[in-house]
Amino acid sequence: MSDGRYADGPTEKCGVVGVSLADRDAARPLYYALYALQHRGQESAGIVTHDGFQQYSHVGMGLVGDAFTEEDLEGVNGSTGIGHVRYPTAGSLDSSCAQPFSVSFKSGSLGLSHNGNLVNTDEVRAELAAVGHAFTSDGDTEVIAHDLARNLLQEDLIRAVKRTMGRIHGSYSLTIMHDDTVMGLRDPQGNRPLCIGEIDGGYILASESAAIDVLDGDLVRDVRPGELVILGPDGAGFDSYQLVDAEHTAHCFFEYVYFARPDSRIDGDLVYDVRRELGRRLWEESPVETDVVLPVPDSGRAFASGYAEAAKADGVDVEFAEGLMKNRYVGRTFIMPTQDARERAVRLKLNPISDVVTDRTVTVIDDSIVRGTTSSQLVRLLRDVGAEEVHMRIGAPPIVAPCYMGIDMATREELIAADEDVGAIREAIDADSLSYLSIDAIAGALGESRADLCLGCVTGEYPYDIEGEATDREVSRPQVGDARAEATGDD
Amino acid sequence: MSDGRYADGPTEKCGVVGVSLADRDAARPLYYALYALQHRGQESAGIVTHDGFQQYSHVGMGLVGDAFTEEDLEGVNGSTGIGHVRYPTAGSLDSSCAQPFSVSFKSGSLGLSHNGNLVNTDEVRAELAAVGHAFTSDGDTEVIAHDLARNLLQEDLIRAVKRTMGRIHGSYSLTIMHDDTVMGLRDPQGNRPLCIGEIDGGYILASESAAIDVLDGDLVRDVRPGELVILGPDGAGFDSYQLVDAEHTAHCFFEYVYFARPDSRIDGDLVYDVRRELGRRLWEESPVETDVVLPVPDSGRAFASGYAEAAKADGVDVEFAEGLMKNRYVGRTFIMPTQDARERAVRLKLNPISDVVTDRTVTVIDDSIVRGTTSSQLVRLLRDVGAEEVHMRIGAPPIVAPCYMGIDMATREELIAADEDVGAIREAIDADSLSYLSIDAIAGALGESRADLCLGCVTGEYPYDIEGEATDREVSRPQVGDARAEATGDD
Amino acid sequence: MSDGRYADGPTEKCGVVGVSLADRDAARPLYYALYALQHRGQESAGIVTHDGFQQYSHVGMGLVGDAFTEEDLEGVNGSTGIGHVRYPTAGSLDSSCAQPFSVSFKSGSLGLSHNGNLVNTDEVRAELAAVGHAFTSDGDTEVIAHDLARNLLQEDLIRAVKRTMGRIHGSYSLTIMHDDTVMGLRDPQGNRPLCIGEIDGGYILASESAAIDVLDGDLVRDVRPGELVILGPDGAGFDSYQLVDAEHTAHCFFEYVYFARPDSRIDGDLVYDVRRELGRRLWEESPVETDVVLPVPDSGRAFASGYAEAAKADGVDVEFAEGLMKNRYVGRTFIMPTQDARERAVRLKLNPISDVVTDRTVTVIDDSIVRGTTSSQLVRLLRDVGAEEVHMRIGAPPIVAPCYMGIDMATREELIAADEDVGAIREAIDADSLSYLSIDAIAGALGESRADLCLGCVTGEYPYDIEGEATDREVSRPQVGDARAEATGDD
Amino acid sequence: MSDGRYADGPTEKCGVVGVSLADRDAARPLYYALYALQHRGQESAGIVTHDGFQQYSHVGMGLVGDAFTEEDLEGVNGSTGIGHVRYPTAGSLDSSCAQPFSVSFKSGSLGLSHNGNLVNTDEVRAELAAVGHAFTSDGDTEVIAHDLARNLLQEDLIRAVKRTMGRIHGSYSLTIMHDDTVMGLRDPQGNRPLCIGEIDGGYILASESAAIDVLDGDLVRDVRPGELVILGPDGAGFDSYQLVDAEHTAHCFFEYVYFARPDSRIDGDLVYDVRRELGRRLWEESPVETDVVLPVPDSGRAFASGYAEAAKADGVDVEFAEGLMKNRYVGRTFIMPTQDARERAVRLKLNPISDVVTDRTVTVIDDSIVRGTTSSQLVRLLRDVGAEEVHMRIGAPPIVAPCYMGIDMATREELIAADEDVGAIREAIDADSLSYLSIDAIAGALGESRADLCLGCVTGEYPYDIEGEATDREVSRPQVGDARAEATGDD
Repeated sequence: MSDGRYADGPTEKCGVVGVSLADRDAARPLYYALYALQHRGQESAGIVTHDGFQQYSHVGMGLVGDAFTEEDLEGVNGSTGIGHVRYPTAGSLDSSCAQPFSVSFKSGSLGLSHNGNLVNTDEVRAELAAVGHAFTSDGDTEVIAHDLARNLLQEDLIRAVKRTMGRIHGSYSLTIMHDDTVMGLRDPQGNRPLCIGEIDGGYILASESAAIDVLDGDLVRDVRPGELVILGPDGAGFDSYQLVDAEHTAHCFFEYVYFARPDSRIDGDLVYDVRRELGRRLWEESPVETDVVLPVPDSGRAFASGYAEAAKADGVDVEFAEGLMKNRYVGRTFIMPTQDARERAVRLKLNPISDVVTDRTVTVIDDSIVRGTTSSQLVRLLRDVGAEEVHMRIGAPPIVAPCYMGIDMATREELIAADEDVGAIREAIDADSLSYLSIDAIAGALGESRADLCLGCVTGEYPYDIEGEATDREVSRPQVGDARAEATGDD
Repeated sequence: MSDGRYADGPTEKCGVVGVSLADRDAARPLYYALYALQHRGQESAGIVTHDGFQQYSHVGMGLVGDAFTEEDLEGVNGSTGIGHVRYPTAGSLDSSCAQPFSVSFKSGSLGLSHNGNLVNTDEVRAELAAVGHAFTSDGDTEVIAHDLARNLLQEDLIRAVKRTMGRIHGSYSLTIMHDDTVMGLRDPQGNRPLCIGEIDGGYILASESAAIDVLDGDLVRDVRPGELVILGPDGAGFDSYQLVDAEHTAHCFFEYVYFARPDSRIDGDLVYDVRRELGRRLWEESPVETDVVLPVPDSGRAFASGYAEAAKADGVDVEFAEGLMKNRYVGRTFIMPTQDARERAVRLKLNPISDVVTDRTVTVIDDSIVRGTTSSQLVRLLRDVGAEEVHMRIGAPPIVAPCYMGIDMATREELIAADEDVGAIREAIDADSLSYLSIDAIAGALGESRADLCLGCVTGEYPYDIEGEATDREVSRPQVGDARAEATGDD
Repeated sequence: MSDGRYADGPTEKCGVVGVSLADRDAARPLYYALYALQHRGQESAGIVTHDGFQQYSHVGMGLVGDAFTEEDLEGVNGSTGIGHVRYPTAGSLDSSCAQPFSVSFKSGSLGLSHNGNLVNTDEVRAELAAVGHAFTSDGDTEVIAHDLARNLLQEDLIRAVKRTMGRIHGSYSLTIMHDDTVMGLRDPQGNRPLCIGEIDGGYILASESAAIDVLDGDLVRDVRPGELVILGPDGAGFDSYQLVDAEHTAHCFFEYVYFARPDSRIDGDLVYDVRRELGRRLWEESPVETDVVLPVPDSGRAFASGYAEAAKADGVDVEFAEGLMKNRYVGRTFIMPTQDARERAVRLKLNPISDVVTDRTVTVIDDSIVRGTTSSQLVRLLRDVGAEEVHMRIGAPPIVAPCYMGIDMATREELIAADEDVGAIREAIDADSLSYLSIDAIAGALGESRADLCLGCVTGEYPYDIEGEATDREVSRPQVGDARAEATGDD
Repeated sequence: MSDGRYADGPTEKCGVVGVSLADRDAARPLYYALYALQHRGQESAGIVTHDGFQQYSHVGMGLVGDAFTEEDLEGVNGSTGIGHVRYPTAGSLDSSCAQPFSVSFKSGSLGLSHNGNLVNTDEVRAELAAVGHAFTSDGDTEVIAHDLARNLLQEDLIRAVKRTMGRIHGSYSLTIMHDDTVMGLRDPQGNRPLCIGEIDGGYILASESAAIDVLDGDLVRDVRPGELVILGPDGAGFDSYQLVDAEHTAHCFFEYVYFARPDSRIDGDLVYDVRRELGRRLWEESPVETDVVLPVPDSGRAFASGYAEAAKADGVDVEFAEGLMKNRYVGRTFIMPTQDARERAVRLKLNPISDVVTDRTVTVIDDSIVRGTTSSQLVRLLRDVGAEEVHMRIGAPPIVAPCYMGIDMATREELIAADEDVGAIREAIDADSLSYLSIDAIAGALGESRADLCLGCVTGEYPYDIEGEATDREVSRPQVGDARAEATGDD
């Protein structure tokens, strides 16, 4: 899969961030951090801040650079704030879902940035609607915000958060602002990433550590599954509240394979190293000797480099070369009215460099196959320009089922591996050979047991209760307990 | 003066409205009411509502019809709300001043719609800035909102409002929403209009009674100078709190002469009747017998009709005719780069109908003269088309000084009557004769003593303390008392 | 009918203009002239000029003032040019129909501004398409342009125009520019107006004489039906070519009743005088004595003034007063989702002034009734405010059929008078009495025989061949002759 | 230099294309071809076509995908056309310079797409203005168009083009359309690229061969310096007219180093191969043994791969790794108000991957150094993350002078190498060592003599007459001869 911006790729929903600083406005650090998270969402960008007296908000459509003017940035005052970049899921392209979601209610203001996807949104929304809540969007973030705001009318902050955790089910990494207090919250199974960093004058919460790097900060640690982190006022440290303990995590392995930046460190692993290691294991599991190893740019590059390195370590003489030129300007608005044109889209994106490919055997390395259209046309392009053999190696297992955890991959009908086995797919894309990486190789490279990963898209069994789908957990919904009872206890 | 939308006319700052209803959304009635107040401001329009849980807001640029889509209207929920249409004063054309101004602060939310102009904004802003308030605009509404929000952190609603009244000085008619409570507040001298109406399912506060008519409602009464009116929840009546009593009012007579709709009833008088009566008195004070009486459309029409009626009642045979055709499409964006073109502007706005004017003596009736350019070109136009004599009669006294109370008339340098007497003006505009109405005729037609009117623009003496200007009051600033002391007492 | 901008009113398609000047750029005079014609079209405005070497064009959406910036005006060079303001007919709201239409073809460039409507567009378009012409819009102007350009490849200018006249059938007043030559052309029956004026440094063609007034010019005469007028280069006079002679004209009487500016003089008559005369005849044909005569502003004002004048001349004591206040800001974008709101629209547009109406008998004067909704609600409004009797008098005959000549009145189904007689309409609108003006009164006031007027909308018989409709002409389509044959002769 | 889209990089002015097809619309192939040339200009995109009868044009701002809707594409009819993507030079950001430039003049229509820069524009414009031409932009394309149009009024096509070539001096690759005839023209020294391809149903002219690839076409050959190529109607072949013969070419070597796509073949060489070869020669000229070789993405990748390959061929054990992660979303609108933020810009664009860099010696390979800011911050970044040594190797000679041939590199004052020698630059950027490639290596890799290259930016001596600059040619301005005399001869 070549790029999340194209029709053929999966799309990640969001990037979140939050900061608390001493004596500095939060806006600019949030703005830089959102730039570093831009790959996680290009539809809208927003910042909500608080200066101790009132809340400020600016949300704009498009890239971070388009969503904010200098004046907009100067208008969001105060030393605490949260930010968000958004990639829409199907059916909610409109601006009413742009985040952070902010609401002014009777006991103050609330801001929320959400990455992930709830699986019981409709249920919670219905309960809230029944007691009079009006919703302006169909997003799950507004549901979380209303539930939390409602709880805050009756309880203190930590109990209110815990009570909300008890009602919502699904994947979520949240940065939250209640008046001028900034918090981070990760769902009990830690599906989506969230980490804590120390920056000049304070602390930051962010989806990926690359957002900390860009501020010359240091990664402190990941937020733990089920943990609430409250940043101290004026950038003074942070407090941790482990609100829920789940037996197993359900980390998304696809963050490593595709979504996250190679230079981010997630739950202990540098993404770039993971990809190179997956490339090495790909060689070990399914080596093929060809004249040249070609990455599909840019997503396959780290895999291909690990693959070629492992081959050379095995004494195989293979050239690692950029044989596919990527046109970086093929954006979302490309007009492709006919099937002919749809096929041309790959031609517009990727052009083989004939001197590298002609009259040679080639191995093409990509991170994943979703619909198969890109792969199939890629093979044809390479054959057209004179490749003698075309072998495909994929750095992930076949994607057989949709994602309900916040990634807009494709419907089951669109997934080529949902119905077809590897042999049939090889035939469909007309490759001389095709191999995927095994699930065990994934777990091995990450050093995690299969039980601690969310493997829904490659097994069809999910770590959450999803209507109409199987689960791979005994108790998929972690018990938050009777929040009220516990809240009167000693959490 | 022909129209507030043209360069030559004065401009009124705003229209405000507020409603509380039983079992109905406030948005649509507010929207209709703003339509009826559109003449008071065409730059932006906005509505802020509350549904008991949270605040909703939509503010858009341009006319009411452009500022709101159907979807926007459906997005502002709840049965209480306030609205605003705005006309900018010089130097604050940007959207950051669009209203209602809303702010989310620690003890809830606040919304404000303001018509009028404070004269001590800088002083109050400086005090608030000194204790840490950040301002996003240079408007006085934000200053009132911050002061009130600050007071609300410490005191109950009514005391907080009274304390704010003690700090701000100038003209103001406000509709205010604290969480879901809607209030109306008029400055101690009642400079700008504000009235209360009963409509289907509740109550309304509005700048003019025409906004009540459009909702098929009934005018209850005007809000009294210095009075705070709090609309009951669910449209259940209203409570009155007379927070300040000033000895004299300072009603703006220009509302009657020019700004208000003819079909509005302000402080007891129907504007249309006032204008006809002013026309009659104009004939009594300075009759001139000509073949035809021509109104300058549309502002002079009611005056001209009263004038012609009085003439006929005196047995004078005069035709009342529309001899000036107005082009209704000459908007603000007209390009007038050269002096030649600037003069052509009047030609574009007004075209004489030759059959009415040629070879006849004419009396032209207008409501006021500001810079004199329009009048001067009008006389020339009429002479060009063959008028034998051109007499001008003006339904107000000469404007000799600027307005500081919320009307962007012109600077003193631009006012033709600031330096010139009536004879010199007549010469400048080349009319055969020119007469203005007297101040006493204004007071007489309104049935008010001069001491109860704001006559600043026609006398140069103001009912407020304005730096560098004279006052016509012994104690221009009504004593609100020591707000804190009194607040702990029994007001 | 109160205003062409509202849902209930008919809408005129366009205004056209053309100038040729000595030593001056044409752009600014065209711009001012378009301002004066703005009432004929508010959707788009455009100017096409030529400087002897190349053609320049600027077309923008919206009002003239919005469509052009100072820079735009400076970019259209040259001393000859044409202009256009456009009102869309149903189904062609998009910008591709904005005019002037300009085309660059092998023997030069062509620009066209069109007011009117062809009735055989489809036929001509099909013929041109058959020989390879591609059309970018569904407008009839492009069809005329292509036909003329095609003819120009083979013939000289005058013969080419004549040949095109032989092919197109319907109403048209055109200003045309071939390279730097400006022409005016009026259809053989002169349905739409077009006149010639002399201005400083040259000559002008315009839909209405008010466009000449605004440039301080003098009306020379109307372009004759079937005449081609070619403006001389450098503003040097004009030449006339009577290309077709029709036995009868088919002037649109509705221009006088509603569309044209009161201050325009069309085919010899000042529109304002015509309306006053129609008002007088209305009194003569159907007098009713009431306390007050109220015009529906602004369209009914001249009628009402003539009506009241005639009444007084008959010794009847009636007051002529403005009893309906018009809200000038109710634009096209007003949101009216429900029937309730649709009725409220009239309330938003028109508010009765109670002191004028309450407890009195009133006669309301309007220019026409289309759907009847406005009239019906108007009567209700007046009764609500306490009118004792409400009589309606209409300054035109009942509209019983649609217009095919360039006015978007309504479909036959929507016209209240298509099926109902006057008694039924009176009942439907709940007036105490209702009278329309007779067709003979129209002809009389205009001093024209019925045979020289287009009366299609009030008789259902048209002066053009319209599929499915009756004609009131023996030979409705004037014979242009065999254009080719004649072109080789001596015209 | 990392990317032409950032402040620090040079910028190429344009990409041009032209097609003639049988029985197919030209619009879609032009659109795809512009996509393939998008890297040559992102400010605007346009297409001009002709269907044998009339000219069609659509030009939009932004990327190709933003500039055209499906409807826009369908509106440009005909089987011949030209296209353009544009990158503005300083001071001409406005839309009036967007291309293709089209003009409708008395003997038909003309369209021009221009890549390059004239050095005598002012002179030619002044001559044309003197005879009455008005210009709407300050661009040189309009000047060429007017001169050619003027010549076409008097002469046949080929002579007119030759006469225009005799007047204009500078670099140009043009695609031209006169009515429906498409032509390509390259300046006598062939400074900018232009090639001919055969595609399905016809022929194409394009700045780079990648535009032919995207249409599945075949590169025929480059257009020769001084050659006019006229595409036959209906896609039927092409004719060549060698209008001028210059002794030497002046190919821009920077096209190979930076601008052109790696997969394009220009004047006989595949750009990717040239870059790899330059990388190999860089190792040969200035080898340094380090733990790892890092490309600056994406511009340095091919160089680094050739460099590492040559090192390994010499038996040196060096890792080739992606150690700098590029954020692909840092666009032009990034807000960088302070110096602090300006430095942060590099941090936002490039993030070192610590596992690759920490505690290691690194060689960073880039294609060029313009201002030096990026390099200097890059070295700091790598040192911050723990690199032991940082060596820089640059795949081009030092840039010591500005480009006048169509590349907006920088002013002489901004160029770090204009005043500083390599030692001083090394010190300024704080690298452990720094080496550039020699001019001879460039010439060697391209297989061309220095006399056939434009080396202005690395020598300060130009192949064109530029006021205030030295030339490296004996006769820099090729003699076109007396165009009229020759035109009457036998060319």
